Amino acid sequence: MKFLHTSDWHIGRTLNGFDLIEEQKYAVNQILALAQDEQVDGIIIAGDLYDRAIPSTTAVTTFNQMLKKINIESKIPIYMIAGNHDGARRLNFGREWLGFNDIYLNTLLDEAFQPIETDEVQLFLLPFFDPADARIYFSNLGMNDERVKAIKTISDAMVLVLEELKKQFDPTKQQILVTHFAISAHQELPVELTSETASRVGGLATMSSQLFEGFDYVALGHIHTNLASPSEKVQYSGSPVKFNTKEANSNKGVYIIELEDGHVSSKFVSLKQQRDLVVLKETWDVLINPDFYNALPLHTAWFAITIKKFERLVHRGENLRAQLQKIYGTIVELDFEDLAREKQMKSMANIENLSEELIIERFYERVTGKHMSTGQEAIVEETLIQLKGEKN
Amino acid sequence: MKFLHTSDWHIGRTLNGFDLIEEQKYAVNQILALAQDEQVDGIIIAGDLYDRAIPSTTAVTTFNQMLKKINIESKIPIYMIAGNHDGARRLNFGREWLGFNDIYLNTLLDEAFQPIETDEVQLFLLPFFDPADARIYFSNLGMNDERVKAIKTISDAMVLVLEELKKQFDPTKQQILVTHFAISAHQELPVELTSETASRVGGLATMSSQLFEGFDYVALGHIHTNLASPSEKVQYSGSPVKFNTKEANSNKGVYIIELEDGHVSSKFVSLKQQRDLVVLKETWDVLINPDFYNALPLHTAWFAITIKKFERLVHRGENLRAQLQKIYGTIVELDFEDLAREKQMKSMANIENLSEELIIERFYERVTGKHMSTGQEAIVEETLIQLKGEKN
Repeated sequence: MKFLHTSDWHIGRTLNGFDLIEEQKYAVNQILALAQDEQVDGIIIAGDLYDRAIPSTTAVTTFNQMLKKINIESKIPIYMIAGNHDGARRLNFGREWLGFNDIYLNTLLDEAFQPIETDEVQLFLLPFFDPADARIYFSNLGMNDERVKAIKTISDAMVLVLEELKKQFDPTKQQILVTHFAISAHQELPVELTSETASRVGGLATMSSQLFEGFDYVALGHIHTNLASPSEKVQYSGSPVKFNTKEANSNKGVYIIELEDGHVSSKFVSLKQQRDLVVLKETWDVLINPDFYNALPLHTAWFAITIKKFERLVHRGENLRAQLQKIYGTIVELDFEDLAREKQMKSMANIENLSEELIIERFYERVTGKHMSTGQEAIVEETLIQLKGEKN
Repeated sequence: MKFLHTSDWHIGRTLNGFDLIEEQKYAVNQILALAQDEQVDGIIIAGDLYDRAIPSTTAVTTFNQMLKKINIESKIPIYMIAGNHDGARRLNFGREWLGFNDIYLNTLLDEAFQPIETDEVQLFLLPFFDPADARIYFSNLGMNDERVKAIKTISDAMVLVLEELKKQFDPTKQQILVTHFAISAHQELPVELTSETASRVGGLATMSSQLFEGFDYVALGHIHTNLASPSEKVQYSGSPVKFNTKEANSNKGVYIIELEDGHVSSKFVSLKQQRDLVVLKETWDVLINPDFYNALPLHTAWFAITIKKFERLVHRGENLRAQLQKIYGTIVELDFEDLAREKQMKSMANIENLSEELIIERFYERVTGKHMSTGQEAIVEETLIQLKGEKN
């Protein structure tokens, strides 16, 4: 059987306030065309369907439209789960009726233990959950042994969850797990798969990919690049769209997975971006020099520009953004080198316009004099998501 | 054929901050039992499924559970529309898949022109819409005549909408219209059904029931009492639950509609309230007299109490609410006669705790020295709904 593996659509996301919905539609249209060309048996979406627990009306309408095109018009089954960005209980609405036309959606841990059965493959759809969800689930099941009481980390929980899932294995079929967590390859594993298999990075658990042995393929969501995949059998597809300037040079795409006679193979297929994202870091003189900019996709790509060796006094009273927009088109980010202090003061003054992530980043820079690493930023983002959770 | 007609479930509504979800579940369980006893061919829910455009997670989960019980477990078709309280586009999610198991949901005007066909009956599901929606719909259809341009009131729009609906009439069948507007009986109608058939009450349109002739039955939602029904063929079922103290003495229920051989008959079936709502207006001495209160459903009903001839000085320092709660149980409203001025001052001080409706009511009382009528309150409520609309 053949499946297309994608994840992290984050419908409704913006890039510094710029709407990404057209980029997302463009990507999903390519995904649909590819699924048809490859004649896949289904599309797997491994979580973070929406960007937040209460998506905007436009996001809801757009996502519904995408599902209609894929599932109702093109008759392709969909296997999808809630990620940490999704509101699990809200997203659950209508789940049973989606199932009437082969959209399989799990958003709650309880729903994960019944695999979706095809003739040759069992698909286990394990949505994002936290250790408390697992404690409650196993207690309700009447399991009150020491291991349930001892669940503290996501790894503790995962060991028990995977045991339960494996009880459903049909030896005449192959097994796919779809899930949404931070998982990496580890060398220094103890022999037994206990909670010690988990490392904890800055308070957030990263699980070892070895925990997931036994599945023919693990289709992951959560990390936005396929380069983070721990192995050929445990893979992140990455997001189909570039969500920030750090992803400007990354190759976006999906996996086509083929399972046959106990074997699995996969290939990564790149997606085109409707508008590319170009990051420039040059002096003002270079930026306004036609010899430099005429080679660039002016007025079609989006630009993130840092002006090097910037001297404010020279440009006093000028509207630099407007000048650059005239040349380049949409500028999603404009930064000034050597103006850290000034920038900081300005951003503090405009604090109500900043995202919570940015406020924390700025605070960190101010206190430590350093920039946050990508890993630290991810921790801040996740912590905020967990704190805000699914309100109401 | 036989249908159960209900409306205005307003899932997620509270009464002065007291959660009504258990009352709503209790009512819907009765509706399901009645539908089974009567062996109806479907349940009609004529709008205001939720109480607001972005319902709480609990409201979404509860409503989904109700639909599952009725439609999946009990295999009863559901015919439902969005009302003015619902967020039309948000509620639209999953509509096509609901249809795979005979839940017919229309939330947008465009969807209304294709009736649901049964062997004997055509059901037209016309959701709440406003004149602008109709202008856009007819313009997109290529109708650019004077009548489309002249659409100003909901009546203007309804005349054209009904004409379009009637083009779909199958003369071998009977026709039901399900809709959600303020409609009343009029005597002084002009001969021709033009926009003049509409009266406008305080800027909000009430349509004449005569506009709707031609349908065998019009199942209405919007007004919460069946007593507002303009005729036997154009009826409000009213809400299944008492939503405020003004509805304390009203009889809540649903209609069972039977269509046969070109005829229609209906009967109103009352629903029990899980907890009744008792409104008391007595002096303090009466309220704390066991001879008075022992006859009442203490600690089971909800009480709304006004203390007559209240003298603050006599009760200085006492916690009257606590004393009454000890006797009566849940007190959803506590009011003091002869304390208008003091109360007003207090409520102005606590303005951030008041609903917008209450702030306007208080302001009206202060300026005019009179209480608002129920009609005026309805106007305020509708205007606020229209103003707030479906944000985001």
